[in-house]
Amino acid sequence: MTDTVVRPKKPAMNKRTPAGGAPTAAHTAAEAHEARIDIPAVTDLLLGTWAATRREAREMIKDPVFWRVEGQPMAEHRERTLSQLRLLAEKGASGRAYPKEYGGQANDGANLAGFEELVLADPSMQIKGGVQWGLFGSAIHQLGTAQHHEAWLRDVMNMDLPGAFAMTEMGHGSDVAALGTTATYDAATEEFVIHTPFRAATKEYLGNAALHGRAATVFAQLITGGVNYGVHCFFVPIRDENGQNLPGITSEDDGVKGGLNGIDNGRLAFDHVRIPRFNLLNRYGDVAADGTYSSDIASPGRRFFTMLGALVQGRVSLDGASTTATALALHIAITYGNQRRQFDSGAGTEEVVLLDYGKHQRRLLPRLAQTYAQFFSHDELLRKFDGVFGGTHDTPAEREDLETLAAALKPLSTWNALDTIQEAREACGGAGFIAENRFTGLRSDLDVYVTFEGDNNVLLQLVGKRLLSDFAKQFKGADAAKLAKFALGQTAGKIFHGAGLRQFGQAVADLGSTARSVELGLRADQQHELLAGRVEQMVSDIAGAVRPASKLPAADAAALFNEHQTELIEAARAHGQLLQWEAFTDGVNAIEDDDTRQVLIWLRDLFGLHLIENHLAWYLINGRLSTQRAAAVSRYIDRLGARLRPHAQDLVDAFGFEPEHVRAPIALGGERERQDEARAYFAARAEAGDAPVSEKSLKKK
Amino acid sequence: MTDTVVRPKKPAMNKRTPAGGAPTAAHTAAEAHEARIDIPAVTDLLLGTWAATRREAREMIKDPVFWRVEGQPMAEHRERTLSQLRLLAEKGASGRAYPKEYGGQANDGANLAGFEELVLADPSMQIKGGVQWGLFGSAIHQLGTAQHHEAWLRDVMNMDLPGAFAMTEMGHGSDVAALGTTATYDAATEEFVIHTPFRAATKEYLGNAALHGRAATVFAQLITGGVNYGVHCFFVPIRDENGQNLPGITSEDDGVKGGLNGIDNGRLAFDHVRIPRFNLLNRYGDVAADGTYSSDIASPGRRFFTMLGALVQGRVSLDGASTTATALALHIAITYGNQRRQFDSGAGTEEVVLLDYGKHQRRLLPRLAQTYAQFFSHDELLRKFDGVFGGTHDTPAEREDLETLAAALKPLSTWNALDTIQEAREACGGAGFIAENRFTGLRSDLDVYVTFEGDNNVLLQLVGKRLLSDFAKQFKGADAAKLAKFALGQTAGKIFHGAGLRQFGQAVADLGSTARSVELGLRADQQHELLAGRVEQMVSDIAGAVRPASKLPAADAAALFNEHQTELIEAARAHGQLLQWEAFTDGVNAIEDDDTRQVLIWLRDLFGLHLIENHLAWYLINGRLSTQRAAAVSRYIDRLGARLRPHAQDLVDAFGFEPEHVRAPIALGGERERQDEARAYFAARAEAGDAPVSEKSLKKK
Repeated sequence: MTDTVVRPKKPAMNKRTPAGGAPTAAHTAAEAHEARIDIPAVTDLLLGTWAATRREAREMIKDPVFWRVEGQPMAEHRERTLSQLRLLAEKGASGRAYPKEYGGQANDGANLAGFEELVLADPSMQIKGGVQWGLFGSAIHQLGTAQHHEAWLRDVMNMDLPGAFAMTEMGHGSDVAALGTTATYDAATEEFVIHTPFRAATKEYLGNAALHGRAATVFAQLITGGVNYGVHCFFVPIRDENGQNLPGITSEDDGVKGGLNGIDNGRLAFDHVRIPRFNLLNRYGDVAADGTYSSDIASPGRRFFTMLGALVQGRVSLDGASTTATALALHIAITYGNQRRQFDSGAGTEEVVLLDYGKHQRRLLPRLAQTYAQFFSHDELLRKFDGVFGGTHDTPAEREDLETLAAALKPLSTWNALDTIQEAREACGGAGFIAENRFTGLRSDLDVYVTFEGDNNVLLQLVGKRLLSDFAKQFKGADAAKLAKFALGQTAGKIFHGAGLRQFGQAVADLGSTARSVELGLRADQQHELLAGRVEQMVSDIAGAVRPASKLPAADAAALFNEHQTELIEAARAHGQLLQWEAFTDGVNAIEDDDTRQVLIWLRDLFGLHLIENHLAWYLINGRLSTQRAAAVSRYIDRLGARLRPHAQDLVDAFGFEPEHVRAPIALGGERERQDEARAYFAARAEAGDAPVSEKSLKKK
Repeated sequence: MTDTVVRPKKPAMNKRTPAGGAPTAAHTAAEAHEARIDIPAVTDLLLGTWAATRREAREMIKDPVFWRVEGQPMAEHRERTLSQLRLLAEKGASGRAYPKEYGGQANDGANLAGFEELVLADPSMQIKGGVQWGLFGSAIHQLGTAQHHEAWLRDVMNMDLPGAFAMTEMGHGSDVAALGTTATYDAATEEFVIHTPFRAATKEYLGNAALHGRAATVFAQLITGGVNYGVHCFFVPIRDENGQNLPGITSEDDGVKGGLNGIDNGRLAFDHVRIPRFNLLNRYGDVAADGTYSSDIASPGRRFFTMLGALVQGRVSLDGASTTATALALHIAITYGNQRRQFDSGAGTEEVVLLDYGKHQRRLLPRLAQTYAQFFSHDELLRKFDGVFGGTHDTPAEREDLETLAAALKPLSTWNALDTIQEAREACGGAGFIAENRFTGLRSDLDVYVTFEGDNNVLLQLVGKRLLSDFAKQFKGADAAKLAKFALGQTAGKIFHGAGLRQFGQAVADLGSTARSVELGLRADQQHELLAGRVEQMVSDIAGAVRPASKLPAADAAALFNEHQTELIEAARAHGQLLQWEAFTDGVNAIEDDDTRQVLIWLRDLFGLHLIENHLAWYLINGRLSTQRAAAVSRYIDRLGARLRPHAQDLVDAFGFEPEHVRAPIALGGERERQDEARAYFAARAEAGDAPVSEKSLKKK
């Protein structure tokens, strides 16, 4: 740890000359005599609105007690994670979102920001904390009322009451409305009877269910007076103080998982378990003592989605945690790629630094650009979340936008985490596979992020449906001529304005930098036109294709939608990418320092062009790019890679990770030390004149 | 395990009617009244040339003693794997490739076929076996001479002499020629002095090095008489009978890895360790008692590559093992996807089977086609390997072709394993993340396959260079007019014939089935033209771009090549995919049963079209496909998916896995049982008349 390249405080510290010989390319901005980013300023930018809380969390987790122990057996890891949660509670890191009267800060944005950073220490701790305070506790907080807060929130916060969030069942994951568990009201005793009527209704994959949970927030079909009022949430005690199951409760252990083995996931089944009427979390629906059901929300469908929407924070936090974990992987791989040498170039005796290889740049730099985009879009998501949950912008429309935005961004960032962590691991070769270098543990733990808190493909379908319904709204009251024009596909682009989250063409109002990136006619506004135009046309095309469904029998209509399911998901993905691009662009435009802005514009361009390259066939088929322009995209990306290469280290240093967050030996200077030692050895042999000559050189004579 | 859908012996057993209600689509070929594959015949086809050995191996590993124990702590897993290797030796599964006089069968093809199947039991066992018998033992066998075989092979085979294969160093992985370890001959004592001159020269990532190895085959720079004759291999004892390091040997433990934790990988360093002259494995280069070096191969470069080439079997076996593991993941995910239901379609009360969703078909069926292609191309690779190493086709040209073929196929199949296992795990949702369902363990273990035994990107570069050199050969003696024509790009396609492995346009001589797949003008011969044409033109384009390099200073020439590194790797990948497509097509054409051939032609078409779709932008930019034709590709893939959907279960049943190979509870009928129970519950409630009515239905009234 002698050569910590992590987070230089001043630009001057960032000046590095590769030891020995001339480099094959400029490795730093200084060498390239180029614009340089102001690293601390970029760190501030990336840490975003709640930077102070993030710094506080990062400082706290410098303590090794919070670090993942690679290879730790499951039973020990579970106990360690439990003790870490108690420690988080002690340190006041458990409930920044909760009301001040229970020791919280009533600060939703800061709460998630702080939690997201825990992924750097151990994702098991992050997710078990999420189960306890973000799901179990949040269900009480968001779905319950003051009496429930008073009864349980203090104990939830301080870990005296560890709990499980019992929504998913063996038979139903994403389709929550179809859950099998029942909660039948018995007016005679003023109790609900919680019951698992068949094996498939067993609650499944619940953190805290196998061992540590004392209670659970159980989602069940509320039945009273012979009527099923749909899924509601109930507080159900499951274990006594000695950890023994209460009567009627059966728990099972999910055992070893692909990752997150610090969490005791398991199953819960209920055999006519009776709980007091009080235990219905009754913010959105209540049952009177006589069994009469009441709710402020008349529509069963809207009530159901309101309850689910109250739990959106899990998705929001996964978007942030994935982005932070991805940044860590890139920090490690790029730092190593900037030091590790392999093969001489044929041009001399000095071996080439990995990051000088064209392919290596192609592997890592577009993913770096993607990660930067995510930091900006996540901060936007978090601000929207804070506005809605903090009450400053809490309208039904804002809530709906928040849910759509979370559903659009969480899939992209969680998939990108797996993709980028894996590419980073491969870019480090065998060293990347050794657990101490972090990649394999991060990847295993984050694997399930793509299917929990909403399966990514299911979430993207929700976004796609929202895009379709927004599209349909454009036609409300439209006259026949307008519809006819649409049918011809001539004006679809003009009348469609997307998911209502941001008006296309307005977000990028003042770029202030158009002169710099005129190259090849792929400037910011043209990138935006291409990205936004694709979303518009895809949605318009799908809408046209499924329009006959309204006149078909249900089975045929379902089949028609099913034929376009893949395209709908793809349109939603394109929409999410557009939002990321817009957030990145807004963020870049706000930068005052010219040099920093210049470099980040190159990075934003790399992000935008990489998205366009990934869908180049679509642009060609739809006549949005000429073949000449299309062919130029890849060449431009290669040039941007070469241009950004001297800034790569600065850009990952700007993530602001310190050695206690990085921990990977390959990114803490060991590789460079070994190279220096080897070089010194050969130099000494040459000086002493006792180096063997090569057979080849003899043959030449 | 009551409803084992695995490997029905007779087609009649394969007839399934989904329990309850009409399915949303035909789930079996019988329901679709379509051609059906002859499952046992397809199993024979996939098991390939050495089917008998594969069946023998699969039978052996039905014994749970060979199975991976999920979550087993590293120390225990290592001991278990060691004991499994002793058991393999006892059962005669350790050395089918070795000479008969040492208890082997001198059967190279059967040897690898048998080893590849071990991946179904535990990849750690497969790879530790590969270290012992395929690397350590093979170095003695292939690089040593009779005296060495006599001295050590028996003990290698029966595990009395566990050993490490000490090639890679901390400072050098893929660049073996640059290794730092030295073996300096001392004529006075007739010994070699093995030495690690600096930390970066420490041998790294060696299986058996941390604990179990008693000796190592060490690659080191052979120095005698003050001349370095390049890298040679030496037999070096490292531990005594009590497991203590011998004098001068330092070993370290790599500790926990991202997978394969049954193998004790570690480091070895040598401090002037003396070994007898005898211990030089001297098949390709020898040192006389007086220190005189001699070799049958005069060129140091060719000698080096001949020695490395003798060890190609590792790459060959990874291609096969990856394919088998991928097939297992698809068997599990498709079986589950054919049973699991989620969300009703809106068309009725019955929920939809996952595999009926268009997106689910898109996720799994092209990957199924890819895996089928790999079975065929792997058998071809294995036959070529057997011909070269068995001596029936052992010429320098055949060896070179074998190495190129292995370098082209191993990257594709190992990457595909990670991609497909992950998609399969996600397609099973949370259940896919539970270790008992196999995906996460397989993925972790196979992760390192993409960077060991040759980093995939480095291997593809080798293939790319071979393609370029083959291309250049076309111009030997070409007149100026021909070169001028080439410069215009007009005849490049006609004069280039690829890597010499197969003549384009001849492999697919008699399709016998053209009438069936005329759809959209994307028949077999057109698929071939598109796939082959892409390889030809990419290589031709790169050759043209780097041609000026020969006249440039070395540094500029290196920079020019570096600019095209990504394209060269992409061309090599396209070449490997073409070879897979050709092997698939040859295999399909050899099928006599019309129905079976028809279904596999659809599957081959799906494979070909999916490759074309993945590179659609290239075909458009290069004028190989019109935009209309290009737009048709994706639609055709969707139609092929729907057409293949009723055959999906048959196609994965044809892998021939039995319950002891599958082991994943979600693929052994549990899901269907639970659904039947839930359905029976609701039916009973309905019959008894005590089911609650829904709030929605009340509101309608």
